[in-house]
Amino acid sequence: MNYIIGIDLGGTFIKAGAVSKDGEILFETSLPSQAEVNPQAVVRQIGKAVGIIEEKFQSDKLLGVGIGSPGMVDLDGGTVKNPPNLANWIVFRLGDEVVKLINEPVKVENDANAAAVGELKFGAGKGMKNFIMITLGTGVGGGIIADGKVFRGAEGGAGEIGHTTIDYNGPLCGCGNHGCIEAYVGQKHLSRHVAEQLKSHPESLINKLIKGDMEKLEPKIISDAANQGDPFALQIWKEAGFHVGIGLVSAMNVLDITTFIIGGGVAKAGKPLFDSIQETIVAHAFSTVKPRVRVLCAKLENSAGVLGAAALFAE
Amino acid sequence: MNYIIGIDLGGTFIKAGAVSKDGEILFETSLPSQAEVNPQAVVRQIGKAVGIIEEKFQSDKLLGVGIGSPGMVDLDGGTVKNPPNLANWIVFRLGDEVVKLINEPVKVENDANAAAVGELKFGAGKGMKNFIMITLGTGVGGGIIADGKVFRGAEGGAGEIGHTTIDYNGPLCGCGNHGCIEAYVGQKHLSRHVAEQLKSHPESLINKLIKGDMEKLEPKIISDAANQGDPFALQIWKEAGFHVGIGLVSAMNVLDITTFIIGGGVAKAGKPLFDSIQETIVAHAFSTVKPRVRVLCAKLENSAGVLGAAALFAE
Repeated sequence: MNYIIGIDLGGTFIKAGAVSKDGEILFETSLPSQAEVNPQAVVRQIGKAVGIIEEKFQSDKLLGVGIGSPGMVDLDGGTVKNPPNLANWIVFRLGDEVVKLINEPVKVENDANAAAVGELKFGAGKGMKNFIMITLGTGVGGGIIADGKVFRGAEGGAGEIGHTTIDYNGPLCGCGNHGCIEAYVGQKHLSRHVAEQLKSHPESLINKLIKGDMEKLEPKIISDAANQGDPFALQIWKEAGFHVGIGLVSAMNVLDITTFIIGGGVAKAGKPLFDSIQETIVAHAFSTVKPRVRVLCAKLENSAGVLGAAALFAE
Repeated sequence: MNYIIGIDLGGTFIKAGAVSKDGEILFETSLPSQAEVNPQAVVRQIGKAVGIIEEKFQSDKLLGVGIGSPGMVDLDGGTVKNPPNLANWIVFRLGDEVVKLINEPVKVENDANAAAVGELKFGAGKGMKNFIMITLGTGVGGGIIADGKVFRGAEGGAGEIGHTTIDYNGPLCGCGNHGCIEAYVGQKHLSRHVAEQLKSHPESLINKLIKGDMEKLEPKIISDAANQGDPFALQIWKEAGFHVGIGLVSAMNVLDITTFIIGGGVAKAGKPLFDSIQETIVAHAFSTVKPRVRVLCAKLENSAGVLGAAALFAE
């Protein structure tokens, strides 16, 4: 059988998986990334992960090793630039170094772009030519699929849709600007906003669920309350969807791409959030574009990182 | 000599020009577009314009006829969809119909995209692979050049950067949304804003220049005042540049394209406007991107429409 290795490179851990050509995870493992040591240590850890998997699949044919990495990625040499959370790492030809070590085909892509390729090959974007992928988590990441390929821009940094401004007087974002989508719905921003609003909503079910412990104010709790019909929690998702939707309209007008695939932990809020995103985009789209708007839930979930990286070698 | 015909199709007039391969205008003419009759009448007028030019250049070789049209353009058949200002025109295979009539190679492109191609082939974008073109006029149009080609999106409508939201509570735009770039710096919006502000700036030179006639409050007047050092007029351009810049940062983050070419009547404001746009973009760009930001003045000016259309046939 043919298989692909997908590597999800994070600041603390490397997740590695053997993936079938159809996107089925055959085996998964995880190692410390040792990113705090230096890039060469990361290369060694990737080599170790590949070794573990190759040993298990000795009688099968490895098609290639896909790596999803933080930071900007230049396809030339699989070069990773300025990755956040990877120390001592400015510009490093990760792909070339991994090839030297394992002597197999290697492709490197930015992790958000890889997630978009994952949805394209194995997930909600299967068979599509154009969509915008958004990951709602601690940060708000994005990847653009245009004409069936990753749209990378001048230097591979395209898709930072989380840093689309929706109100230049809005809340401060981690990037230093005001009113980015991420400054509203990035997980910490959202929790802080809910904590503030909660003071004037003593009736909200959220209060019961967190029992006064604001640390517990995670999207999961807001969703639990919303699922039980709590009006305040529903309102929170409605607002979050509005903020995401307004930003996506700008991206849509720039790109003329009208399909959105939304994943990440915050997206687990489900219907109340998705309905609000869809309504906001349709309400603000050019009239000729309205009928084309589609907002879909990402399919790859927890293994999105490994599957996205593996998808770099999918047909 | 080889030459190209460029056709700038407008709601009232067709401008047509014979253009050399290097982007020199050899001859220009103009005819009523008869867009108020029907699309076939427009085709006949285009045919007439081509005939006039071919007669003048009988001993030369026509390389092709490029047409810049309002509306969304599908390259299949040179199909123009929902053009504003062209009546009775929903979906029409303009390119195919013109080919039938004149039997020469024809390419059709959206006018804003054609303007970007014009700058790419003949203007400020010569030799570049990636830039965003913005035209500041009555509306705020845009075109994206990515990897040396027009980025068209799913259906050819990409580049509507004028409808990037910078404040969803901002002023109402013609598109029905609030706080688009166009709602701040589209010519009418800008004039109205200045008229309002002028009441609290009786000292401004603008008052002298318009002599109380608010109808005269065009960008040209604001520029004249700014050029004479009028602080209020300078402040207007500074604000306008800020609003444009904030919107361009969103587009830049989505596209990872960091060169901006800015044209159109309002761009004649020159240095005070351009400095403000540049400063705003640099101030709000990701730190790794700041050094790459370039804001350039478009070069094609008055003949941008004809040259952009002709550029569709330039090497």
